[in-house]
Amino acid sequence: MKRWEMDAPGRARLRLNTVAIPEPGPGEVLVKVAAVSLNYRDKQAIESGGGPAMKFPFTPASDLAGVVTGLGAGVTRFAVGDKVLSTFSPGRLDGPGHGSARVAPYVMLGGTHPGVLAEFVAFPADWFVRAPDTLDAAEASTLPCAGLTAWTALVEYGPVRPGQTVLVQGTGGVALFGLQLARAQGADVIVISGSDEKLARAKALGATHVIHREREDWVEAVYRLTADRGVDHILELVGGAHLGRSLEAVALHGRISVIGVFEGFTVTGSSIPLLLKEPTIRGINVGHRRGLEELVRAVDRLGLKPVIDTRYPLADLPAALEHLDRGPFGKVVVESR
Amino acid sequence: MKRWEMDAPGRARLRLNTVAIPEPGPGEVLVKVAAVSLNYRDKQAIESGGGPAMKFPFTPASDLAGVVTGLGAGVTRFAVGDKVLSTFSPGRLDGPGHGSARVAPYVMLGGTHPGVLAEFVAFPADWFVRAPDTLDAAEASTLPCAGLTAWTALVEYGPVRPGQTVLVQGTGGVALFGLQLARAQGADVIVISGSDEKLARAKALGATHVIHREREDWVEAVYRLTADRGVDHILELVGGAHLGRSLEAVALHGRISVIGVFEGFTVTGSSIPLLLKEPTIRGINVGHRRGLEELVRAVDRLGLKPVIDTRYPLADLPAALEHLDRGPFGKVVVESR
Amino acid sequence: MKRWEMDAPGRARLRLNTVAIPEPGPGEVLVKVAAVSLNYRDKQAIESGGGPAMKFPFTPASDLAGVVTGLGAGVTRFAVGDKVLSTFSPGRLDGPGHGSARVAPYVMLGGTHPGVLAEFVAFPADWFVRAPDTLDAAEASTLPCAGLTAWTALVEYGPVRPGQTVLVQGTGGVALFGLQLARAQGADVIVISGSDEKLARAKALGATHVIHREREDWVEAVYRLTADRGVDHILELVGGAHLGRSLEAVALHGRISVIGVFEGFTVTGSSIPLLLKEPTIRGINVGHRRGLEELVRAVDRLGLKPVIDTRYPLADLPAALEHLDRGPFGKVVVESR
Amino acid sequence: MKRWEMDAPGRARLRLNTVAIPEPGPGEVLVKVAAVSLNYRDKQAIESGGGPAMKFPFTPASDLAGVVTGLGAGVTRFAVGDKVLSTFSPGRLDGPGHGSARVAPYVMLGGTHPGVLAEFVAFPADWFVRAPDTLDAAEASTLPCAGLTAWTALVEYGPVRPGQTVLVQGTGGVALFGLQLARAQGADVIVISGSDEKLARAKALGATHVIHREREDWVEAVYRLTADRGVDHILELVGGAHLGRSLEAVALHGRISVIGVFEGFTVTGSSIPLLLKEPTIRGINVGHRRGLEELVRAVDRLGLKPVIDTRYPLADLPAALEHLDRGPFGKVVVESR
Repeated sequence: MKRWEMDAPGRARLRLNTVAIPEPGPGEVLVKVAAVSLNYRDKQAIESGGGPAMKFPFTPASDLAGVVTGLGAGVTRFAVGDKVLSTFSPGRLDGPGHGSARVAPYVMLGGTHPGVLAEFVAFPADWFVRAPDTLDAAEASTLPCAGLTAWTALVEYGPVRPGQTVLVQGTGGVALFGLQLARAQGADVIVISGSDEKLARAKALGATHVIHREREDWVEAVYRLTADRGVDHILELVGGAHLGRSLEAVALHGRISVIGVFEGFTVTGSSIPLLLKEPTIRGINVGHRRGLEELVRAVDRLGLKPVIDTRYPLADLPAALEHLDRGPFGKVVVESR
Repeated sequence: MKRWEMDAPGRARLRLNTVAIPEPGPGEVLVKVAAVSLNYRDKQAIESGGGPAMKFPFTPASDLAGVVTGLGAGVTRFAVGDKVLSTFSPGRLDGPGHGSARVAPYVMLGGTHPGVLAEFVAFPADWFVRAPDTLDAAEASTLPCAGLTAWTALVEYGPVRPGQTVLVQGTGGVALFGLQLARAQGADVIVISGSDEKLARAKALGATHVIHREREDWVEAVYRLTADRGVDHILELVGGAHLGRSLEAVALHGRISVIGVFEGFTVTGSSIPLLLKEPTIRGINVGHRRGLEELVRAVDRLGLKPVIDTRYPLADLPAALEHLDRGPFGKVVVESR
Repeated sequence: MKRWEMDAPGRARLRLNTVAIPEPGPGEVLVKVAAVSLNYRDKQAIESGGGPAMKFPFTPASDLAGVVTGLGAGVTRFAVGDKVLSTFSPGRLDGPGHGSARVAPYVMLGGTHPGVLAEFVAFPADWFVRAPDTLDAAEASTLPCAGLTAWTALVEYGPVRPGQTVLVQGTGGVALFGLQLARAQGADVIVISGSDEKLARAKALGATHVIHREREDWVEAVYRLTADRGVDHILELVGGAHLGRSLEAVALHGRISVIGVFEGFTVTGSSIPLLLKEPTIRGINVGHRRGLEELVRAVDRLGLKPVIDTRYPLADLPAALEHLDRGPFGKVVVESR
Repeated sequence: MKRWEMDAPGRARLRLNTVAIPEPGPGEVLVKVAAVSLNYRDKQAIESGGGPAMKFPFTPASDLAGVVTGLGAGVTRFAVGDKVLSTFSPGRLDGPGHGSARVAPYVMLGGTHPGVLAEFVAFPADWFVRAPDTLDAAEASTLPCAGLTAWTALVEYGPVRPGQTVLVQGTGGVALFGLQLARAQGADVIVISGSDEKLARAKALGATHVIHREREDWVEAVYRLTADRGVDHILELVGGAHLGRSLEAVALHGRISVIGVFEGFTVTGSSIPLLLKEPTIRGINVGHRRGLEELVRAVDRLGLKPVIDTRYPLADLPAALEHLDRGPFGKVVVESR
């Protein structure tokens, strides 16, 4: 079978090797990978390493949709033929995951654990959930990280009430899931982008309002669009000092879910709106397996279709990564076909 | 009657004037002030003004305990002789108060509204609540701001479970109410201070652990005291870049209530613990009238005694303010006697 | 002006009298009534009295939409020309309302307080909220009781997650608001009725599944439709022993909102599902003013259109009440025209 | 080793047999049992069977404290020498457990699964948690069912605020844990009993008020003791029609945790207080493993000492069961010594 492997960090070290199909050990399932959804984090892991626990040869990526083709001893959770998704943080079934104040939980496929850019993987059965019935493999592969991150923010932690306003920054994978899930909960959604074309597509996808970030100050635009009331829930996908702008835009007792780190790893903002408006700020670490199971059910019930910008064959991973560099509208997926 | 008044910002402009006892208008009560508790914010208002809405002559301070001595037309909420407390934010009965994303709620006695450093005040009956039965006036006067701030953080927004750990920074009024309320909810409490004497007093008041901030790194001390588990709820009373340290000390899915601004009006911290540990950060804007009513009931039931460092007669306000400069253990109160 | 009045309980005692237009007192507004929505409770009040505090001459009904035409002294909450709705429980701004364990809160227009079946009413400004922009008066008049009851159950107390299942019993006003609000939150909705025609209309309104209660056991049908998972949130609109059936149908950790009393004033059910599935049962007492304000905003944002079965002119109240006897699909409204 | 076994339902069929010490299989631990706490449910299982899944020979009881003395293959959760507690519902790690609306979760040691009245048991490591440091084995053995039931009601589902009032019915194991945990959260506690001696002991244990149920109507007594405000949280330990009395006694927006079934398996009550006071009623199915871990931490931090009425040697199980018949004050424990 084929598997992408690297012997050192750096995009140039990616090789599509031919290796033996793995054997599922006790408690494991063998899964034939149908599609892998790429995340911004995968680019970072490929370029600069997946963290201190990274081992070489390293296979990147965390989010797969596939079919169970073999069962290790003692597996009852799945049967051969079941369509499945991987979970981003292996072993995090519910709650905050394993870790402490000093050593925070940081485990993921294609990082601290092996990745999924391969034709087959053999992992513990507990690391998978059943795939939705209504999506093809490429669509389904976008749920474990991008979909679940938006779900954790908007449903698990921050239920959104009908009539509230949600704001998403940009039109990447988490942003568009946020747009779709917020609309499904009856909220108005504001999308910010620097591209007229992307704003038009966001509008077509259901955005209530769009703001071109270079044409006007987005916080002033929020005040205008909400009659000064502000935004009830912001998906803070930029990070860094941008949190300060979100604190200006947030409504009284609103919520800011911190997800992105594009503007650096130090968040800053003014105490004044934080103290006076009493918003809740919470970081989002993707989510747990129960959340992914709930998202799968919701996707089937809602008929929600994840937005895929482009699908690439497995061998074209380099082109897919270059697409990620350019900033896709929604997700970039690599398919085994 | 006597009333402290200023004709311009600056501590030197404080005058204890003799003025007419006010008449309660329709819906107002006349209250004979027995005690006024001073807050750090009062110092700021006296020195640099109470905000854009400040009007002169200005009377500072927000927190009084007193007795109703007269009723305006239509008042049914109180009777003459009722012991009452002022509410910090007049008219905020429940929820976030009045304001918008653009113009956040910012109303308080001794700031945007008249202050209480006087022998009598006449205010709307809705601005008062019944005082506790078990406290004297000086003790009761500490509830409207310092007590309610700790209550809002630890009870209204962040219920604390038995066996959890709460950390308070310093030994001012909010910190000591935090210590007492967290202990009353069954939590361990860690107190940080730079004074051995204050730490000994905190210990006597019920602190489970104390950390001298100059003898060891307080975050490392927290890891040591909690076996790396971290703190479930931090009252962030320092503010500014100190938030970053609290993000290191907080437990998985813990909570940081931002209250203080001693290190400036820009909070900063690392995204890494914010994303991985998924703590909740929330600013605290004192609280609402329902919260104060609940606190009053709790104080009576628990037998909780607010900690007063020193009581000064009304005429000695300057000495009381100098005491505030030095950093009291608990509250400084001015009494009419 | 015209006003419906009774000098004693009994439908035959209803008289459409001509009386003077009331004068708004201090703090009151004069409202020209455009539409009044009738509730099942109004029938009870007319037939057997509105409770111990009922005074004669008695005017029934609680839910109006109208326009402010006059202001009493000191009113700032509204201006002449504002479109407004009444609040069902006058003076309940937020939280549980006023009352005790012994004397539960029981206040409503057209019961303990005067009713609204008149061309004009003069009530305190605090008893009104702004009407939605997107509804006509008849539609808007259905929000204060039927709409708010469904909102309180499904949004204020029991947030519904996308992908969950909500069940409503019957096709009355609360049931259809429940259907619409649950769909707006991304839930599947099951409707039970004994009429094929009403089920077809519920389906057209968005119901995911319908059950004809005389063709099959509805609990078995729920098991079939949900693959035994059960219902996450049940609006229990029948009451009495029917609660026991809802306990069978509810999902693990689901919720039952008790609203109706058609099968009597004693609820009964088996302890077994109550203990093992740990559902939450909660009674719904309509709701508070903040909830109505949120509902109004949601209605405007969602474009939600309340379902009115038939509109009657004010003079045809008797025909409207007979329609209520027969069980309308949605609401029956009386209009001043 | 010794193990209590029955070949058919009925107390007379209990035999203390000598059997081989079991071998821990893969993933299992061998635990030397130090103490077993008896529950009312154990009496029912012994007398009338532990449910449809009961298999003979049957060993009763669910709650043990002991020491790990052997490890099956692959166990990393514990080491030999670790002090442990059993979990009541094996495999329920968090959330509602496994089941559906049709087939509710019903699994427990000494019922659907083997019991613990033996000198050794070999069970999966996942079925145990670490024991508290501050309790002896007999005290610790009371946590898995009685302690956790009170914890789930008062902490996991129904956080209690300082100054609120909690009511417990009787002085059995759950009632006294409820008393202790509610006091630890800063609540007033009312205890009802028909025995002056038990009321005196409850008072000594911290009860704020006691009511002798035969000397006065307990609901009227609650009104008197709370100035009509009622009780914020009731542990409904009687069940059946007694729920109706609890609905009378509960405060506005209070909570009733249904636990006991002494008055039968059909709960009944009036809709009127349910609708008007909007209390929350929720059944309690003991709890999950995460809850037990939190309770263990809380017990150690609080210094909470479970109340044991009498300790019996393992061989004296019949006498211990007779003591259960008479209604102990707190728990009856059987020790291996």
